[in-house]
Order: sequence, then C-alpha cells, then structure tokens
Amino acid sequence: MYAVIFKAKIKKLDEEYAQVATRMKELALEQYGCLEFVSVIEGENEIAISYWENEDDIKIWKNDPEHILAQELGKTKWYESYKVQIVEVIREHSGNT
Amino acid sequence: MYAVIFKAKIKKLDEEYAQVATRMKELALEQYGCLEFVSVIEGENEIAISYWENEDDIKIWKNDPEHILAQELGKTKWYESYKVQIVEVIREHSGNT
Repeated sequence: MYAVIFKAKIKKLDEEYAQVATRMKELALEQYGCLEFVSVIEGENEIAISYWENEDDIKIWKNDPEHILAQELGKTKWYESYKVQIVEVIREHSGNT
Repeated sequence: MYAVIFKAKIKKLDEEYAQVATRMKELALEQYGCLEFVSVIEGENEIAISYWENEDDIKIWKNDPEHILAQELGKTKWYESYKVQIVEVIREHSGNT
C-alpha cells in the first residue's frame, strides 16, 4: 500500500476551500480508487494523508482535471507553503484501548 | 528516509499529555536522531509524523523507557484507538506559493 502525505502551512482558508476539500475527498474515494483519506487542521498547519493500492492510481488521481484546478487554488489562495511525500507502507499495527 | 505515521482517536487529553508530548518530541529529536516531528490535532483526531534516516533508529526509539511509558499512558488514558504505520519515503516535492 502507498500513501500521499500532504503537509501545508495555511495562508487563508475560505468557504470555497471547504467545498473543494469535500469534493476532492469524494472524488478520490469514489472515482479514483483511494482507499482512505484523512485530514487534520490545527491553526496554520494541515496534514492530509490519502492511501492507495499502487503508484499508478496516485499518478492518475494527480492528473484529474478538477484535482489540477484544486491544486492551483491551493497554491494561489490557501497555502503559504506545502510539501507532498509519496510513501510506501512497510508495516502497521493498531489498537483499541 | 523513513517515517512513522501515528493516527489516533482521542479519548481525553490532559495537562500531562501536553508535557509528555513535548518531552517525547524533544527526546526523539535530540537523543534518537529523529529528523523531523510534526503533529496536528483537530477535535478527536490526531496525526503525528516523525521522520527517520533508517528503520533501526525507529526501533531504538520505540524501546526508549520514557517512550514506552508514554505509549502506555496513551493506551490507557488519552486515546480511544490508534494506528501506527511505518513507511518509506519514495519521493517528495514542495513549494512556496
């Protein structure tokens, strides 16, 4: 399994951000085979992680026209800076406490 | 480069949590070779990611006595459930907007 870690310093979020973020999550999960999508915002820091079966799915998702537009909006309006990391999950464990 | 993704559903955070979280970050960075440590909390969701040069460093850090105690406190007091994923960073890109 692979994941895309997106970390950003937020400039200014607006109502359009909320709409686009919801739409991107829906699109990734329903039409591009995204396995899981989590995002957390605290103050000026955002971390979002999406999980994928393989790297091809990530590339195809990256080139979706609506997603390209959202990436542009992110760069021009919402984020001060950002970092994207493509990672492979080596192992995992979880627990209910 | 490797990373540890820690995701948790929060049960209840307290003052001890803030102290221990700060101490763990400091310890990982200053004594265990952690390259970067980021964490974001929103509502009941926490995502923390630490970055490491290799997997051995991660294993050594996991077994630090103070860290073991913190993990136990997390399981018994602070978290409802959690997931830990060890990942390898394949590629990354970043931007200032």
